[in-house]
Parts: sequence; structure tokens; C-alpha cells
Amino acid sequence: MQGRKPGNQARKQVESRRNIRLVLAFDGSPYHGWQIQPNHPTVQGIVAEAIGKITGERVTLHGSGRTDAGTHARGLVANFETASAIPPGQMVRAFNSMLPRDIRVLSARRVALDFHARRSAKSKIYRYQTYCGPVMPPHLAREHYHFPYPVEVPRMQRAARLFVGEHDFTSFTKKTALADDESVPKNMVRRIYGCALQKKGRRLLLTVEGNGFLRYMVRNMMGTLLEVGRGRFELERFRALFERRDRTLAGFTAPAQGLILVKVRY
Amino acid sequence: MQGRKPGNQARKQVESRRNIRLVLAFDGSPYHGWQIQPNHPTVQGIVAEAIGKITGERVTLHGSGRTDAGTHARGLVANFETASAIPPGQMVRAFNSMLPRDIRVLSARRVALDFHARRSAKSKIYRYQTYCGPVMPPHLAREHYHFPYPVEVPRMQRAARLFVGEHDFTSFTKKTALADDESVPKNMVRRIYGCALQKKGRRLLLTVEGNGFLRYMVRNMMGTLLEVGRGRFELERFRALFERRDRTLAGFTAPAQGLILVKVRY
Repeated sequence: MQGRKPGNQARKQVESRRNIRLVLAFDGSPYHGWQIQPNHPTVQGIVAEAIGKITGERVTLHGSGRTDAGTHARGLVANFETASAIPPGQMVRAFNSMLPRDIRVLSARRVALDFHARRSAKSKIYRYQTYCGPVMPPHLAREHYHFPYPVEVPRMQRAARLFVGEHDFTSFTKKTALADDESVPKNMVRRIYGCALQKKGRRLLLTVEGNGFLRYMVRNMMGTLLEVGRGRFELERFRALFERRDRTLAGFTAPAQGLILVKVRY
Repeated sequence: MQGRKPGNQARKQVESRRNIRLVLAFDGSPYHGWQIQPNHPTVQGIVAEAIGKITGERVTLHGSGRTDAGTHARGLVANFETASAIPPGQMVRAFNSMLPRDIRVLSARRVALDFHARRSAKSKIYRYQTYCGPVMPPHLAREHYHFPYPVEVPRMQRAARLFVGEHDFTSFTKKTALADDESVPKNMVRRIYGCALQKKGRRLLLTVEGNGFLRYMVRNMMGTLLEVGRGRFELERFRALFERRDRTLAGFTAPAQGLILVKVRY
């Protein structure tokens, strides 16, 4: 013990810290979104509690971003630092034996200490699912929005492509975000790498990849596209929305249950 | 009123009787199957009660066949006779405003009086859904059976094709059906028109069309195929099952939650 230099001790502590990256899937129906809130069940809260039981530590769990109450995920990414040496494969089994069935840890792996689920993210892919038939089939009810009116799909598809590129999305964010509130991001410009609307039978699937998303942005994109499909919204008027920067000019906010965070890219 | 012949009265009564054909979809998780049972919620019971409220009559609701507790349907067909003149389209809306969200009437139409949902059926199509990955994604959990072991799919696909044709399915029905019970059908021969196993990612979808199905038949077919996939069951032994007529020789009964009645043909 005598010959040991003090530096070794510190290095050992650093080496024993592990950064664990989780991929999570959940049915968001019973949860108040990702982010921890007092008195409401949230996915972050429930997963952080499970980490506590597995590692015996109170850790900070970083998510790739917030999700709205009721929104689902197929591949939300999160990370946390731990001194625990439990192998990641064993951790997956421990999580899934502990978590409710509607939250699953799909994978866990050790990553570099500088990986951060939100800050390191390059892009996110969301899907919004709408069902356009007269009667909602029960097996689609949990993850589709029911819009029982006829829509002109090719016109919606043309409009969807106009989202691609760098735009000011003020017209497509939450109304209150326009108030003079310090917590609201000043920069409303986001880059959309891809945006396409697919028709599969009576289902309309909007898939959007972007470098970031404002609050309610995808839900407002879908709501506006549905109004385009109903013929209530000319394509010219639609094009002007980015420059007008006025939330009251775009379409309605489609409900949270149709929205799925599909994947986060790094 | 005097000149009216008594025959007219009888004919009018017959003419005013309508036979209504319903197509139903339901999430079977919370129900004890189709058929009415005392003290258990069943789909037939709930739909018959809704008919009572809509028509003011107590009717007999005929289904295309029983389904097991927990089994789902995308297109179960049922019929009932009524004196009510409510147009079928209006009936669909009345049903769906009254029924729980996990039972939906997809369509209603007037058919000939001799149509009977069970007796007139030519064939039924069932699908059994299995998920073979290590962790069950929440959005598939309600309608898939989780089988977290590696399976050899091409071998299962060869075995699945052997079901096609006319066979004695004694080895694939409920064990108690072999007891000396008057209520058990003596004829265990059924004709399978098509049987195929599809692999979609980590999902295995078994689709079977036949002129009739014994109790637990599709679930036992899936269980046996999974044992074939695990290498526990040689193809030769599998082939012999029809002739051996012994339930104890086939594979396990896959759980109800993976089974879906997709369609009934007339």
C-alpha cells in the first residue's frame, strides 16, 4: 500500500466510472411524457428508480429529449454514469424484470464518458400515425389518431416535402412559446433532413427526420397537413407559413397518441 | 281494412323481418372469448346487449364461431334478425357510440334471411403472431406471443406447408376433447386450404385458412411449429402426427393472445 502514488487512486476512480447508453421503447399512454414531474408517473422517473434499485446509486438519467404526455417511443436513447460493474447484458435483464411491461430497455452498452444522449444527438426521427377510415380498428387505437374524413393524399404529400430544409418553425410550435418567456428558445430555426407522408391502406404515416424539434412541432405539422388534405388550406398559403411566423395561421395540433419517437441518430 | 286477405298480414310480417350481417373487430384481451357465459364479459354478450338497446328487441346473435378467451378478431362475422327498420349505416354509428372502444362494428348490411354467420361460412382465416426477439416491444405485446429463443425458420416453413390438405387433427386439438364426451365432435377431419409462415423482422406470422377449426387447433399448430424451429421435433415425426391421432405427441399450446381471427369467407 505504501508505494502507491496518490494519482493512481484518482485515475482508478475515473476508470471505474462507466457511462451506460440505453435504448428504450415505451407505450406512452399511461405516462406524463419522459421528463420527471412531481406527482405524475413519467418514463424518466420510473427508469431512474429502476437504475437506483439495480446499482444502489442515485444517478442522473439524461434522455435524448422530452416527449409529450401520451407520446410513444420505439428507440429513445438515454445515458447515465455509474460506478456499478454489472455487465450491460445483465442490466437489460434486470431492467426488464423490474420495469412495467409498457416500458422496455431494448439494449444497454458502455460508451465513452463524453457521450450525452441529448447533446451528442445528430438527428431524431419521429412518426405520426393517422387512421382515416370511418371506424377505428381496436388494434390501432392506442397509437393512431382517428381522422374520419376523406383527404386528398397527393396534395398532402406535396406539402409534406415542403418541410424539408432549414426553416423557421414559429408557426408550428406551441402557442405559449410565443409569449415573452425566458425558458422559451429564441431560435426557432430547425433543419429537416427528410419528411414524407406514406399511405398504407387507411393509415397515413408521416415520417420526419430533423436536427431538432420544437414543442408540438410534429403534431402541428400533421394537423396542418390534414387541413391541406381537406382542401381548407391552399399550398401557397402553406408555403408562406415559415415566413409569417404566426402559430395562429397553421392548422390544429394533432393529439399526442399518434406520435412516436422512432430513432435517435448520433 | 275489410278487403285485406289474411295472407297479406303474414307476408308483411315476414317481409318486415330483416337479417343483419355485422363484421366485428375486437381486442380480446379483457374478454372471455366470443360466446356468452354467465358472470364473465364476452363479446357476444356485450354486442347482443347493444342490439337490445338499439332495436328494443331481445335477439339471438349468431357468430361465425367461438373464439378463445383473450383471442382477437379483425373480421368476425355475426348476424341477427330484427323487425327494426333502422338503416344499417345508422346502426354502425349507434353500435360504435355504445360499445367499448375495444369492440367495433366495422360494417352492417341487410342480407337474405337464410344467411347464417356460422352455417353459411365457407372458410375462416386465422393468424398467429409470435415475436422472437429477446425483449418484447410494448407496441406488439398485446397481440404477439413472446418466444425469446432462436428458431430455424425455413424448417418451420416447410413444416407449415404440410398442414395443407385434408387431415385428421386429433393430435392438434384440446386434450380433453379426447375424453368420452358427447359434446366433443367425433369428426376430427378438417381441410386446410392454405398455411404459410412469414418472417417479418423478428415477427413470425402463421396464416391458416381452413373449412373449420377444432378447439386450440391453430394455437397447437403454432406451438408444434416452434418446437420444429427449435430442432426438438424432426420433420418425419411431425408428418406422422396426423396418423398417430394423439394430442400428447404434438407441441405445446401457444397462448391465446397471439391468435387473431382475420376473416370469414362465405
